[in-house]
Amino acid sequence: MTNVVLGKTQYGKAENHVVRVNRTTDRHTLRDLVVTSQLRGDFDAVHTHGDNAHCVATDTQKNTVFALAQKHDITTPEDYLGILADHFTSEFDWVSGGRWAADEHAWARINDHDHCFVQNKDEIRTAVVVADGDQRTVISGFKGLTVLKSTESGFVGYPKDQYTTLPETEDRVLSTDIATRWRYNTDDVDYDAAYEDVKSIILDKFTDHYSRALQETLYLMGQAVIEAHPEIDEIKFSCPNKHHFVYDLGFCGESNNNETHYAADRPYGLIEATIRREDAPEAEAAWDGIAGFC
Amino acid sequence: MTNVVLGKTQYGKAENHVVRVNRTTDRHTLRDLVVTSQLRGDFDAVHTHGDNAHCVATDTQKNTVFALAQKHDITTPEDYLGILADHFTSEFDWVSGGRWAADEHAWARINDHDHCFVQNKDEIRTAVVVADGDQRTVISGFKGLTVLKSTESGFVGYPKDQYTTLPETEDRVLSTDIATRWRYNTDDVDYDAAYEDVKSIILDKFTDHYSRALQETLYLMGQAVIEAHPEIDEIKFSCPNKHHFVYDLGFCGESNNNETHYAADRPYGLIEATIRREDAPEAEAAWDGIAGFC
Amino acid sequence: MTNVVLGKTQYGKAENHVVRVNRTTDRHTLRDLVVTSQLRGDFDAVHTHGDNAHCVATDTQKNTVFALAQKHDITTPEDYLGILADHFTSEFDWVSGGRWAADEHAWARINDHDHCFVQNKDEIRTAVVVADGDQRTVISGFKGLTVLKSTESGFVGYPKDQYTTLPETEDRVLSTDIATRWRYNTDDVDYDAAYEDVKSIILDKFTDHYSRALQETLYLMGQAVIEAHPEIDEIKFSCPNKHHFVYDLGFCGESNNNETHYAADRPYGLIEATIRREDAPEAEAAWDGIAGFC
Amino acid sequence: MTNVVLGKTQYGKAENHVVRVNRTTDRHTLRDLVVTSQLRGDFDAVHTHGDNAHCVATDTQKNTVFALAQKHDITTPEDYLGILADHFTSEFDWVSGGRWAADEHAWARINDHDHCFVQNKDEIRTAVVVADGDQRTVISGFKGLTVLKSTESGFVGYPKDQYTTLPETEDRVLSTDIATRWRYNTDDVDYDAAYEDVKSIILDKFTDHYSRALQETLYLMGQAVIEAHPEIDEIKFSCPNKHHFVYDLGFCGESNNNETHYAADRPYGLIEATIRREDAPEAEAAWDGIAGFC
Repeated sequence: MTNVVLGKTQYGKAENHVVRVNRTTDRHTLRDLVVTSQLRGDFDAVHTHGDNAHCVATDTQKNTVFALAQKHDITTPEDYLGILADHFTSEFDWVSGGRWAADEHAWARINDHDHCFVQNKDEIRTAVVVADGDQRTVISGFKGLTVLKSTESGFVGYPKDQYTTLPETEDRVLSTDIATRWRYNTDDVDYDAAYEDVKSIILDKFTDHYSRALQETLYLMGQAVIEAHPEIDEIKFSCPNKHHFVYDLGFCGESNNNETHYAADRPYGLIEATIRREDAPEAEAAWDGIAGFC
Repeated sequence: MTNVVLGKTQYGKAENHVVRVNRTTDRHTLRDLVVTSQLRGDFDAVHTHGDNAHCVATDTQKNTVFALAQKHDITTPEDYLGILADHFTSEFDWVSGGRWAADEHAWARINDHDHCFVQNKDEIRTAVVVADGDQRTVISGFKGLTVLKSTESGFVGYPKDQYTTLPETEDRVLSTDIATRWRYNTDDVDYDAAYEDVKSIILDKFTDHYSRALQETLYLMGQAVIEAHPEIDEIKFSCPNKHHFVYDLGFCGESNNNETHYAADRPYGLIEATIRREDAPEAEAAWDGIAGFC
Repeated sequence: MTNVVLGKTQYGKAENHVVRVNRTTDRHTLRDLVVTSQLRGDFDAVHTHGDNAHCVATDTQKNTVFALAQKHDITTPEDYLGILADHFTSEFDWVSGGRWAADEHAWARINDHDHCFVQNKDEIRTAVVVADGDQRTVISGFKGLTVLKSTESGFVGYPKDQYTTLPETEDRVLSTDIATRWRYNTDDVDYDAAYEDVKSIILDKFTDHYSRALQETLYLMGQAVIEAHPEIDEIKFSCPNKHHFVYDLGFCGESNNNETHYAADRPYGLIEATIRREDAPEAEAAWDGIAGFC
Repeated sequence: MTNVVLGKTQYGKAENHVVRVNRTTDRHTLRDLVVTSQLRGDFDAVHTHGDNAHCVATDTQKNTVFALAQKHDITTPEDYLGILADHFTSEFDWVSGGRWAADEHAWARINDHDHCFVQNKDEIRTAVVVADGDQRTVISGFKGLTVLKSTESGFVGYPKDQYTTLPETEDRVLSTDIATRWRYNTDDVDYDAAYEDVKSIILDKFTDHYSRALQETLYLMGQAVIEAHPEIDEIKFSCPNKHHFVYDLGFCGESNNNETHYAADRPYGLIEATIRREDAPEAEAAWDGIAGFC
């Protein structure tokens, strides 16, 4: 008889789209989050015996996501996910931890109007709170921030083998969709302010040097963030190299001095890197389930 | 023997992603377009006899899209598509017309930098030039501009039948993704300036009234555009009513005064309308192939 | 004062995802449709005066979509959409017509089981019923059926100009996603049987000839359908030419005799054609709102 | 001075779409893979000093992906990824490992034709080979296989708290998109045969019991796979509970005995579970970068 056992599990309700309007004054504010709640703990009997006595319904998790948004408002995604984590781990004995994540869509006022907004889609803010017993790990970030520099980027000095055809260049377009996540070493953080500052550092850093490889640029971004933010121990990037090929117009005699490009979809370069504070404790487990970051 | 005949046809190369950098000075500019070229004319023999003598290769259309971007630069999407239209209809006798379309992605400077940009994804600009012999019709627009008002919207007074369960409300969230297209009556247009002004009018109009139905709000937007822009004869909208349902928290005794909403994906309301200048000639044929606008 | 008037409008509830199980016997059947209902008629006052007296709520349309699925079952998408059309045009005086459309997802039994199914995703079936007063036009079709032939396709004899670089070939991969729509000239149709037969003809026809251009292959498909189906007056195709480029391995001395291909995403060829029964009446208006078919 | 260090990195070329036709006989076969190559090893200087001496160009990785597909053919995705792993780790001293992954799209013959195919989209096959020095870990799987049972599923006996509103039911629709990955404990595997058998076991298992929770059904699937396949040590599932809500038609007096459902998009339940062979060694690191499996 083969011995089969249950390994790691988690479950919950994914992608609850909560839009929380604060109407305390006539000048409304709003937060727009897509929230996923996942519980971990003693759920073996659900799997192995169809015994649901511990199985907090995902529908209950959904109701809770909305009820706590109403009760506590959503001041920041991170604080709100922390409230969810505390609720579920305290409400049910057998819930030993879990993972609460949100994608946030930003809204800007139209003409500084009190209650009319236009969505800012430049990037999507991300937040994750991982609970393991009493421990909380907060990982913030964003994805889909698309940047491009039309010069001051090159790629030379790489190894050549029998499969290498790429010519070296000291002037190319460099473009990427920045996806990044950073891990805090404390929960005493003004998450909105930190978010804005990290994003600002990353954008600034994109502009201030000749890039010898996307790898170098990501490292410089990460280094600047760690240096400026003592509350951040680690930052990861997962960024495509979105190729912009200079279109060869030799066939029609038109010169093309890095002006007209074909922007390719696939394949694309993909660069993943971690930059961290030396001597800071690692927290590998907290990154589980975050796709596409090594 | 059944008599089968060929009806309307068009063909070409779709979604050429052209990124044109203007490096005339150190302060670069760029235009980022996804361009589709489609030819109409005497192409019957390709279909009925596999005779390609008239079949301008879609690969040739692609090369031309890039070559003319280089040769003439891309000053505006509309002007550039017009150059493509003129090229194909003059280069090949049997090309009597066609349709050239572009989606444009906007880029903003990072910190006013000369050659570093961040993509602005709030909306996608659209442009179409339809050629029929010597006639040119230019239809501009945008899609995906997402707006929301957190109050000053309601829906009452509608007919009730046996399938009606919706309660009336005088205070709800109203949100939509604005997709709009407008048709010019001339080609003597500063297309970039017109674009910015139409968008600005539409955003302004979203804010300035209590909305009794999305239909009313779209009409007011269109009316304002036609009144302000004599060069525009017609504007169409195709806009979802993105439902934000107040989450009923009665089960847990939490009051919810239009604060916490569940933002639904599907189904959604879908409102399509045309607003036009009285007495202006119609141009139904030019709208062919523009999806989702009645 | 500028005179602004309302032009064409339609509105409704889009993408109602209805899954109708027939449990008449223990051997269940099911139909899985995403349904859009759009009304046309006298809706001017909603737009111009915010007067909703005629505005059948899109929520009511949604309820009706589900209620009539229950009441009449869904025997075929076309018959069901016809029931919706009849309901709305008879229930409300001012509704003079409309457009009801569905995408259907197919399910197959798992091991011929009575109530367990696996979704067949090869293609999506489409159906549209357009009502204009008492007139009904039924347009059926499918989209996303991806086919490929690995030889017996070529492209030669096309015109060359200064922008042409494509070499002629008499052996290439030909691949497309078939999207097609056909218009019936009667409503006395077994829609499921007709669907299966049209699909079968199209697949057969893809295999039986050397293709000199995708245009020729689409024409042959359409001709065969019209010849075999007297109840169909017209069929349209909108099909990408999904380029499979032979990967040039000359750099490493590996020969590549049309074996290893790079399958490109964008740009792609796009071929649109109409094949129709000679002397059959045209019905241009019925095609309004079907995206991407010329 | 803050001490910043580089942590884990990997990089490569993502989503190379390779279509390999085998033309050895007139009865062609084909394999259609989207391949991602990612290298790990001593790449610190690229990041920290912009020194590309070790930076095998992602363009070179792309060329290699296509060249080795030609040279060795693609017999199975797993064998082919293994060839890529061996190539890169042996060709470059400083490449100590990496990750090679593929999504495979299946094609079926049209009418048993020699060279005409239709794509089978029911599910996407996945394969990953992780190399760490001489060690190889092979993880196979599939995603997007959508199944539904229209009865013989229920959910009762779960805990109720102040946020619980879900009524118990002993008859509901159960539907999910099966995504699963399994890890082999050997590379002496007929990967195609194993794939077909695992898929068959999972589909069979879906049908053979009353499901008391999706968790139970996933466990039973995994248990059956582990018991039947000694070469598999571990299998994981990540499956949405795709809610099909019985549409309440009480408003119009229509009874609805689990017949007419609204199929919701978001939120959805999300169940993740691992089933493994007792006493088998764990291999946590090999799962890094596989999104959405706990």
